Amino acid sequence: MSTTTSAELDAQDPLAAYVELFIPGEHVVSYLDGNSLGRPLLATRARFDSFIVNDWGDRLIRSWDEQWMSLPLHLGDRIAAITLGAAAGQTVVADSTTVMLYKLIRAAVDGRPGRTEIVVDTGNFPTDRYLVEGIAAECGLTLRWIDVDPDRGVTPEQVAEVVGEQTALVLLSHVDYRSGFLADMPSITAVAHQAGALVLWDLCHSAGVVPMQLDAWGVDLAVGCTYKYLNGGPGAPAFGYVAWRLQAELVQPIQGWMGAADVFAMGPGYTPADGMRRFISGTPPVVGMLAMQDMLDAIESAGIDAIRTKSLVLTDHAFALVEELLAEFGVGIVTPREHDQRGSHVTITHPQFRAVTETLWSQDVIPDFRNPDGIRLGLSPLSTSFAELRVGVEAIRAALIALP
Amino acid sequence: MSTTTSAELDAQDPLAAYVELFIPGEHVVSYLDGNSLGRPLLATRARFDSFIVNDWGDRLIRSWDEQWMSLPLHLGDRIAAITLGAAAGQTVVADSTTVMLYKLIRAAVDGRPGRTEIVVDTGNFPTDRYLVEGIAAECGLTLRWIDVDPDRGVTPEQVAEVVGEQTALVLLSHVDYRSGFLADMPSITAVAHQAGALVLWDLCHSAGVVPMQLDAWGVDLAVGCTYKYLNGGPGAPAFGYVAWRLQAELVQPIQGWMGAADVFAMGPGYTPADGMRRFISGTPPVVGMLAMQDMLDAIESAGIDAIRTKSLVLTDHAFALVEELLAEFGVGIVTPREHDQRGSHVTITHPQFRAVTETLWSQDVIPDFRNPDGIRLGLSPLSTSFAELRVGVEAIRAALIALP
Repeated sequence: MSTTTSAELDAQDPLAAYVELFIPGEHVVSYLDGNSLGRPLLATRARFDSFIVNDWGDRLIRSWDEQWMSLPLHLGDRIAAITLGAAAGQTVVADSTTVMLYKLIRAAVDGRPGRTEIVVDTGNFPTDRYLVEGIAAECGLTLRWIDVDPDRGVTPEQVAEVVGEQTALVLLSHVDYRSGFLADMPSITAVAHQAGALVLWDLCHSAGVVPMQLDAWGVDLAVGCTYKYLNGGPGAPAFGYVAWRLQAELVQPIQGWMGAADVFAMGPGYTPADGMRRFISGTPPVVGMLAMQDMLDAIESAGIDAIRTKSLVLTDHAFALVEELLAEFGVGIVTPREHDQRGSHVTITHPQFRAVTETLWSQDVIPDFRNPDGIRLGLSPLSTSFAELRVGVEAIRAALIALP
Repeated sequence: MSTTTSAELDAQDPLAAYVELFIPGEHVVSYLDGNSLGRPLLATRARFDSFIVNDWGDRLIRSWDEQWMSLPLHLGDRIAAITLGAAAGQTVVADSTTVMLYKLIRAAVDGRPGRTEIVVDTGNFPTDRYLVEGIAAECGLTLRWIDVDPDRGVTPEQVAEVVGEQTALVLLSHVDYRSGFLADMPSITAVAHQAGALVLWDLCHSAGVVPMQLDAWGVDLAVGCTYKYLNGGPGAPAFGYVAWRLQAELVQPIQGWMGAADVFAMGPGYTPADGMRRFISGTPPVVGMLAMQDMLDAIESAGIDAIRTKSLVLTDHAFALVEELLAEFGVGIVTPREHDQRGSHVTITHPQFRAVTETLWSQDVIPDFRNPDGIRLGLSPLSTSFAELRVGVEAIRAALIALP
């Protein structure tokens, strides 16, 4: 019955044709890890070749003036328009996600010197938690931990309980990397602001699949990665967002030449550039900024609202398939059923999922395993078909049946 | 006469064939900026295409285990063996040069808490100077500036004058980015060590063209870039070196998941990895780490000593050509004539060089201009022929003659 359903859903999918834009791996039966590493687009091959031969090989150093110097802000503006709901001039592409987080966390806490606490939740991604641990130690700050249900995520009520006049910054993830829970960004931002705190949102698991309104919601700071749903390739650089109203006030600690007011003056003394460019430190990682441009083209063409719609139908279908094919084996579903409480991955659990994942990988069915018993089905709306999802869930069923 | 000489030098050059490994730009008459951005190799086209189709597009997330996780240390070890004179396990590729400098400067000064000064010279590259300015402010340290002759570089005597028991760190560039002066790394390192200070060398303008002996010279820390003489492409990541004896003692401040002892434990609390991996913060910038591998192959094949020999013959030839063709116009030479006092670029000066550079670029002759009156002739031994150098100098002569 669901075979028909998967096929029917593909037939009805207005975005179905987008799947053809991506490179079909020869050894890929079902790829369910687009929330970890997005697939390359076919167009990316020609883009890289032209880059090597023309932009780099022929224009050489001239390309800095002709295009590369403006790339960090240009790509930031595109990401802002496509998925962040942010006006131009507030977003920059640079650094790794970890480094960009460090810079903006430091900028925030250094910019609120009277306040001594950072609020963070226990379910946040490890890099976020490790970073604030280090920053708290070096800046003499206290961490206030919100102990979240690992099967859900942080709520406005939980934030309200811990924020106060000592809170410099609230650091949270928009989509919980384990459960897929989608936090209520506007409400939590408002709660933090009532206490006079700044908020930094980690958008790694929502950029490219969830439409946001950072400007309208009054968000202060945000950081996200470009190698998941923005398909920038492994280790592609991060993006950082700093609201207009804070740009003149906040200063990040890694003072490099590319963030200076006059990059090529090279004079004595650092004066930060006006606007968003002051949040750049080193030379832009141009090679790492190429591939995402093909995905930005695709997202622009499809529209983020249509992508979100497909994401919800895909994740609904994942629930249905898990219930139909896996529930009898005791597989549980962690991810919330409510549309407004989930991102684009569905996490399911079973005590034997470590062994099951090994079997799946050996069959070129690729979800990812999360300690201690979770499988994440990451569904990237433009590259994942309903049939591909069904193939993956059927393979999980077969692996469970085959367990010793 | 020198026409013959350039041709003869090419005919005698044992590395002449290497020029054929590089992409010949359609609009490149003479490229003299390899010290700013190295040229791509022909092999890099196939490498990127195979990466997109196979490593990324087909293996997908599996490539992390299969090859990408080990890339930062693997490439670091290759760079160490090829040009740094350093044993394996002390070098890592990650971040931008600016960010890597920040991390290792912070690791050094945080690791010498009783000492309150950083020694740096006025001729250091802007990013280095801007960084220590910010770090001094945030860590409550004092900067001791060595005022260097901009036509030379820093000497052991100058360092001896300012280092003392208050010095936490001495931060210097191996090759001065303006004059091309090659600092006496072993002597200066010894002088700093006599005062109990650590030394961090910026190797941006020497990695890939100057053989070093970081281990034998007792260097503590070093950072360099991979887009100049290592041809990694625009904004390719940096490398950082931390001597074995310091790795357990020093801690860098950007505590990310990739530097944690167990990357995928994702537990509470950051414990830095043993060894060099603790100096990694975020996800390795894999796409930016591809192109340099073709140049590392070429350098390995040619050998750094042969490359240094050609570099010296090339720069000697640059001096001869400037004297023959440009001296009559009042062009001066900044770069030292002594072999042991220069890197691989030659800086010449003339009051009209800003206008001359504009003319040259319009003719696809590409050196770079440095405020206020300098042209740098950057000679990358594997990609620059003697004839190409001569064409460039002749174009400068023609542009000087044509000045209004």
